Amino acid sequence: MLNRVRSAVAHLVSSGGAPPPRPKSPDLSNAPSAQPAVPPEAPRSPPARAGSGSSAPAKTVEARASFSRPTFLQLSPGGLRRADDHAGRAVQSPPDTGRRLPWSTGYAEVINAGKSRHNEDQACCEVVYVEGRRSVSGVPREPSRGQGLCFYYWGLFDGHAGGGAAEMASRLLHRHIREQLKDLVEILQDPSPPPLCLPSTPGAAGSSDPSHLVGPQSCWSSQKEVTHESLVVGAIENAFQFMDEQMARERRGHQVEGGCCALVVVYLLGKVYVANAGDSRAIIVRNGEIIPMSREFTPETERQRLQLLGFLKPELLGGEFTHLEFPRRIQPKELGQRMLYRDQNMTGWAYKKIELEDLRFPLVCGEGKKARVMATIGVTRGLGDHNLKVCSSTLPIKPFLSCFPEVRVYDLTQYEHCPDDVLVLGTDGLWDVTSDCEVAATVDRVLSAYEPNDPSRYTALAQALVLGARGTPRDRGWRLPNNKLGSGDDISVFVIPLGGPGSYS
Amino acid sequence: MLNRVRSAVAHLVSSGGAPPPRPKSPDLSNAPSAQPAVPPEAPRSPPARAGSGSSAPAKTVEARASFSRPTFLQLSPGGLRRADDHAGRAVQSPPDTGRRLPWSTGYAEVINAGKSRHNEDQACCEVVYVEGRRSVSGVPREPSRGQGLCFYYWGLFDGHAGGGAAEMASRLLHRHIREQLKDLVEILQDPSPPPLCLPSTPGAAGSSDPSHLVGPQSCWSSQKEVTHESLVVGAIENAFQFMDEQMARERRGHQVEGGCCALVVVYLLGKVYVANAGDSRAIIVRNGEIIPMSREFTPETERQRLQLLGFLKPELLGGEFTHLEFPRRIQPKELGQRMLYRDQNMTGWAYKKIELEDLRFPLVCGEGKKARVMATIGVTRGLGDHNLKVCSSTLPIKPFLSCFPEVRVYDLTQYEHCPDDVLVLGTDGLWDVTSDCEVAATVDRVLSAYEPNDPSRYTALAQALVLGARGTPRDRGWRLPNNKLGSGDDISVFVIPLGGPGSYS
Repeated sequence: MLNRVRSAVAHLVSSGGAPPPRPKSPDLSNAPSAQPAVPPEAPRSPPARAGSGSSAPAKTVEARASFSRPTFLQLSPGGLRRADDHAGRAVQSPPDTGRRLPWSTGYAEVINAGKSRHNEDQACCEVVYVEGRRSVSGVPREPSRGQGLCFYYWGLFDGHAGGGAAEMASRLLHRHIREQLKDLVEILQDPSPPPLCLPSTPGAAGSSDPSHLVGPQSCWSSQKEVTHESLVVGAIENAFQFMDEQMARERRGHQVEGGCCALVVVYLLGKVYVANAGDSRAIIVRNGEIIPMSREFTPETERQRLQLLGFLKPELLGGEFTHLEFPRRIQPKELGQRMLYRDQNMTGWAYKKIELEDLRFPLVCGEGKKARVMATIGVTRGLGDHNLKVCSSTLPIKPFLSCFPEVRVYDLTQYEHCPDDVLVLGTDGLWDVTSDCEVAATVDRVLSAYEPNDPSRYTALAQALVLGARGTPRDRGWRLPNNKLGSGDDISVFVIPLGGPGSYS
Repeated sequence: MLNRVRSAVAHLVSSGGAPPPRPKSPDLSNAPSAQPAVPPEAPRSPPARAGSGSSAPAKTVEARASFSRPTFLQLSPGGLRRADDHAGRAVQSPPDTGRRLPWSTGYAEVINAGKSRHNEDQACCEVVYVEGRRSVSGVPREPSRGQGLCFYYWGLFDGHAGGGAAEMASRLLHRHIREQLKDLVEILQDPSPPPLCLPSTPGAAGSSDPSHLVGPQSCWSSQKEVTHESLVVGAIENAFQFMDEQMARERRGHQVEGGCCALVVVYLLGKVYVANAGDSRAIIVRNGEIIPMSREFTPETERQRLQLLGFLKPELLGGEFTHLEFPRRIQPKELGQRMLYRDQNMTGWAYKKIELEDLRFPLVCGEGKKARVMATIGVTRGLGDHNLKVCSSTLPIKPFLSCFPEVRVYDLTQYEHCPDDVLVLGTDGLWDVTSDCEVAATVDRVLSAYEPNDPSRYTALAQALVLGARGTPRDRGWRLPNNKLGSGDDISVFVIPLGGPGSYS
C-alpha cells in the first residue's frame, strides 16, 4: 500500500492549538513515481512503533516477517529475489507446471516501485474443510447427513507501515472463519430456519427440546427471521474481529507490525460472500456488465462515522484535534471570521464563526487519496494498527479504525454463468489507475483469446490486469500506454471464474 | 401518524433485568382498522408528557394546538368540522374557486379513522423571498445584481403523540430555511466558487481582501471544493436543527406536544432539494419511470446508528436496555444458553452465551411497522419529542432521535419534463398501503384523463392517491377495491409538476 500512512511530520499537530506548518514532504499518492534507484532501505513512513515494553530490534523482525510471498507462488530463493526487485518489477504468478490454484483461480502480483522495502501485499487461496461440532443444537441428527462443510477462500491483504499484519492475516484469517463456522455446520445444512437459541453445551442433556429452542410462541409480539445467509455473514464479521484481537494480543511477542486492508471471498453452499475492510475492491464482470461487490472505507467515505465518534468521545481527540471538518487549514489570524465547516450530522456545508478550538487540526482532512484520519492514515477499516499513534504524540489512532468488513452476497445459482464471467479482486494498486470499464475491457480482450477450457486463461487475465496497472519503465517512471503514470504501489489481483472451477484439475 | 409511538404498557421494561410480560395491547400498525365508533377522546398513546415544571392542562392545549388545518385549504367552520370527522373521512383539497397553490401544486388529505382525535398531519406550501444581507463577503457587488432570492417550498409534517410539533413546524420551518439562506443570497448568485472564509461582520472594513478570503495558496496541501449546491444542503440541514432547538426552548411556554416527521422540498435556482427526516416518502414519476427521492429513517434502517450510540454512551440506556439486538425476547430460564444476536458492527447474526445483562430489553426491537426504539417510538428522525420518555421510566428517548434530514438533490434543468412528470410527497398513510408502482399507475391514469393545461389535474391526482389509500367503509373497516384494509392513518399528499408552475396563474 503506497503512502497509506502518511509521512511523519514533526509539529504537524500542535498541542498548543496553533496551526502546524505546511507538511514538508509532499504526498505522492496521486502521482506514483517509479524510482528504481530508490534504495530499498528507504524508511517506510511511519515505521511501525514497537509497544513501550518491546525491545526487539525492528529491522530483524521486519526481515523475518515481511520478506515472504504466498506459498502458492512456489518461489525458489532466486525467484524470491526477483519478486523482491523494485527495478525490474517482474509480474509473479503460480507456475504453469505446478499444482494450480483451487477453482481454476488466476493470480498475479508485482512489487511496488520502491516505496517500501518489500511487497506489503499478501494473498491466500485455500479450500477449507470445516468439521462440525457434534449435535450442536442438541437434536439428534440423521446419521446419513455429512458431518462437515467445505468452503473456498480467497484473501487479499494490503499492508501498511510494515508487512507483519498482512502476513499474519494471510496465514490465519481463514482459520478464524473456519472456527466461527464450526458451530453452524449442522444448522447450515438443515433447510429449516436456524434455531434462535441453542443449549449452552453442544449435545447437553436437558436442553434439547426443539420446540423450546425454536418455538414460534415467543414472548415477543414478533420474532425476527434469521436466514442461513446472515449466519455466514455474522461468522465472517466475527472472524475479522477475532483476527484483529489476536493481532492485539500477539503484537509484542510476534512483532505484528503495521496494519492491513483485508478483502476476502468465501464460497459456501452456492453463495459467494465478499467481505471488505479497507480500500481494496472487488467487481464482477458478467456478460460485459459490471457489478460492484465492495465499497471502500476511507476517511472520506467514513467521515461521518469518524466525526460522530470524536464528538461523542472527545477524549479520543486528545485536545489536539477537532471533530469538525473545514475545507482548508484555518490560520490563527482568521479567528473571529466565518469559515465553511461540516459536523457529524451534515452532508452540506455552512459558515461558522472561527473559535479558538477550531484551530486544532481536523480529525478528517484532505481529499481523495490524500484524505487522512488524524493526519496519519488513509484507510479507516482493516486489521492491526494497534500501535499506530499520531506522529509527535502518544494519541492512539486505533479507536477510529474499524476491523469490521462490509459483506456482500452473490448467489451463484441465480444465474447461468459462462466461462468469461469473473469476479476480480484487486488491491488499490490496481484500482488507482484502472477503471471498472478498463478492467471489463481487459477481461473481454484476454479471455476471448483463450479457449474456454484453457486452464491458463484466468492467470493470463490476472497478469494482464497487473501489467496494465504497472506499465513499463519510461521517462523516469513507470508509464501506461497513454503516457500517464502507472501504479508505483504493490499490485495484487485474483481472477475467480464464476462458472465454477471448470472440468480440469 | 398511526401508532408510531407505541401504547404504554406497564412493566414492559423491567428495571430488575427480568423480561417483561407480553405487551397487553396489540400493535395495530400492520392492521389498520376503521372504527368510526371510536370516541374521539380516546387517549393517544402515549400522551405527550409535560415537562416537570409544566402545570398547564394538556387537554386545553391540545384543543388549541391540534385542531387546525393548513390555511390554504380555506376551510370554513363547517368545513373544519367535516375535515375533522373520523366517520366520514372526507378528502380535503384547496377549493377550485380560490387562489391556487403555488407552482400548480396538487394537494389532498384525509383524517385518520379514529386513532387520534385530530388529524396530526400538517402541510405547508409557500413561495418564500429571501432578502440578502448586504455585501456578505465584504466585496462590493455590481449594483445591477438582484438583492434577493425566491424559493418555492413544500412541507409535510406527520405528527405523533400530539399535533403541536407538526403544527409548529408547518408554520416555522421555512422561516428557518430563509434565515439560513440570508447569508448566501449573494454567494449563490455568483457563479464563482463560494468563498471558504467570510469576514466576521458583513461588510466590515479590513477583511475585504478577496484573495485572502478565497486564496488558493492555502496552508493545506489541498482544499476542498465546496459547491453552491452543498451550501443549500447545509442551510436546510441547519434549519432543521434550529427548528428542533426552538421546539426544545418553547416546549413549556407554548406546549409543543409530541414530535413529527418532516418531509420538505425546496426549489431554488433550478434545483429541487428533497429533505426527509422520518418515514414520509417522496418519489419522482418521470415518463413512467420511478425515481426514489427519499429514504425512511426507522429503528430498522438506523439500527446500527442507535446501537453504536447505546454502546458508546451506555448511560443513555439507563440500566434498563441493552444495545444488543436479539431476534426475540430472552426468557430468564434461558440464561447460559446461546442466543442469536447482532451488535452495532454486525449485519449478520451470530450466537452468544446469554448473560444476565442480556435479559434487559433491547434498545431496538420488532420488525417492519412494529419496530421500536426503547419499546416506544417507531421513527428515528424528526422534530420535537423533547419530552418523550420510556414508559414507566424517566429515561429520555430524544438522545437517540436525530433531527437531521437526508437531503437529495434533483437538477430540474438536466431533463426536459413533460406535464405528466411529477414529484409525489406522501405521509406514511399513503405508502403503508400503496406501492411506488401503484402510485405511478395512478399518475398515468389520472393525468391522461385531463388536458395538459387543466389547472385542476394535479389536485385530482392528489385526491385519487388519497382515496386509493383510504378506501371505502365496508366490512367493519375501510377497505380497498382488492378487499385489503385501507390506511386508517392520516393521509396527506402533495403532487408537484416537474414541468414547472405552468402557464396559468
